[in-house]
Amino acid sequence: MERKTSDLILGVDIGGTSTKIGLVQNGLILRSDRIPTMGHADEHVFADAIAQCIKHLTNDIDPSAIGIGAPNANHFTQLIEQAPNLPWKNDVPLAQIISERTGVPTTLGNDANAAALGEWKYGAGKGFDDLLVVTLGTGVGGGVIVNGELVLGSAGNAGEIGHTTIVMDGRDCTCGRKGCLEAYVSIRGMRRTYDELDGNKDVLKQEGVQCIADAALAGNYEAMQTFHHTVRWLAVALANAVATTGPARIVICGGIARSGSLLLDPLKEWFRKDLLNIYHDRVDLVLSGLGENEAGILGAAALTFMNKELKRSV
Amino acid sequence: MERKTSDLILGVDIGGTSTKIGLVQNGLILRSDRIPTMGHADEHVFADAIAQCIKHLTNDIDPSAIGIGAPNANHFTQLIEQAPNLPWKNDVPLAQIISERTGVPTTLGNDANAAALGEWKYGAGKGFDDLLVVTLGTGVGGGVIVNGELVLGSAGNAGEIGHTTIVMDGRDCTCGRKGCLEAYVSIRGMRRTYDELDGNKDVLKQEGVQCIADAALAGNYEAMQTFHHTVRWLAVALANAVATTGPARIVICGGIARSGSLLLDPLKEWFRKDLLNIYHDRVDLVLSGLGENEAGILGAAALTFMNKELKRSV
Repeated sequence: MERKTSDLILGVDIGGTSTKIGLVQNGLILRSDRIPTMGHADEHVFADAIAQCIKHLTNDIDPSAIGIGAPNANHFTQLIEQAPNLPWKNDVPLAQIISERTGVPTTLGNDANAAALGEWKYGAGKGFDDLLVVTLGTGVGGGVIVNGELVLGSAGNAGEIGHTTIVMDGRDCTCGRKGCLEAYVSIRGMRRTYDELDGNKDVLKQEGVQCIADAALAGNYEAMQTFHHTVRWLAVALANAVATTGPARIVICGGIARSGSLLLDPLKEWFRKDLLNIYHDRVDLVLSGLGENEAGILGAAALTFMNKELKRSV
Repeated sequence: MERKTSDLILGVDIGGTSTKIGLVQNGLILRSDRIPTMGHADEHVFADAIAQCIKHLTNDIDPSAIGIGAPNANHFTQLIEQAPNLPWKNDVPLAQIISERTGVPTTLGNDANAAALGEWKYGAGKGFDDLLVVTLGTGVGGGVIVNGELVLGSAGNAGEIGHTTIVMDGRDCTCGRKGCLEAYVSIRGMRRTYDELDGNKDVLKQEGVQCIADAALAGNYEAMQTFHHTVRWLAVALANAVATTGPARIVICGGIARSGSLLLDPLKEWFRKDLLNIYHDRVDLVLSGLGENEAGILGAAALTFMNKELKRSV
């Protein structure tokens, strides 16, 4: 007897701390759960935990596909390639392992591309066939849609906006190079900017961006300047990306994007100033409307639309 | 009686000084000629001159299509839009005019995109479905191929690598902004670098890049440093473009590219240093093998492969 297929998709969003798993139908998350990413003996034990969680979420319904978003995942090789922030340092064929565990076709892609696909299929980028999605968080990721297709690049790793250089010979970046966007506008980068402006006086007791945002809203000069500089660096990087791929819309998502108008209003102003005039009024800039937990799962689910590209080789 | 169609294409390459017209078959230029771009009463008189030249080149053979490459041409609108370096300041529907004059389907595209298509169809980029072509000359242009398609961008004007910012608040650029790649690595930019290093002593009597190249080869310190700085700026911009679109190959063309190994050898070295490690050994850097006159005509001819995209609107 043929098994019944469904329009249900499973999105698995692997983060450094936890892995979120959700059952998605037409862009809505019906049910979701999470498991820790760390603490498993190896990738097979981790895969068992994912499979267990999937079984629990789906009950007796067969999802049509599973999409897994992970840092350093490569769509072409379908491997998680030596991810520095994940517990396994080798190349992990997680899609294959999960597919064997569950019997469901499984696709793996990197988390930034997943975010881009999620925004394009289900979020603020819906209907934009030329789109740029930038994720601001612990790191800075990107995903580019061109001519109605995700730009994977020849080796499956395009869209690394966070590692475009915006200051030659600038700050050290975790990637080993200098002056990357990520070294300036990530959570760590913003904190560093604040500390530099503040002379490392440690006025802000908490980590993260929210306390800088709170301080800025309360009139703290260094915090306001931190947002000012962050916006300027980001605006330049976005304008550079526009001049390269010509999107009609940019969607900003991730933790920092939740600073709302503190970020968006000055960013729009500087972005327009930094934009080559031929792009004026031809590209807009919006914040993601997806919630933090939602975005990762929907993005991972959206990766399942990418199977057709798998025929390409690296 | 039905007119005979052929595999002959006409390429019309409109430059600031002269317009080159060539009859192309399978990537070979069978015959070519040139007319001045300046000095015509208006765009219609200019179009008459082009049509006359086409008639002369084709004799009684009907070409299947005409491709016109021009600065500031927009593929979607099929207009030359207020080109600062061309004699007509209004929007000129040159493809339509030429098509009416000749009875041959005519496509218009910008010269940098044309160069990219030319390299992709006939040149050093042949067979690379993820490709970046950068033209170094009076200005700096670019064209991006992704997933086997030219990236036009939502408004038909993607690929403006020359106007990506590489130095925030840097040199004034002709576009009205500051710090663009073009302000540093164009012919004018290199001359400016030389003059700044030289304290404006005017040692080099000639304009252009060749005399800087000659001086560098003769051991002139400022000239060597000019190439050093040019290479560093260009390498950063190329690495940024790679991080965005992930090409497997970059083709450098245009006047400056003819400095050969004086440019290419150090550029390769710095490009590798500036490249995020995940792209190492996944992208190479080559100079165009097409001759100066050839490149423009073949590029314009290659624009005729783009007709399918015309259904898109701005």
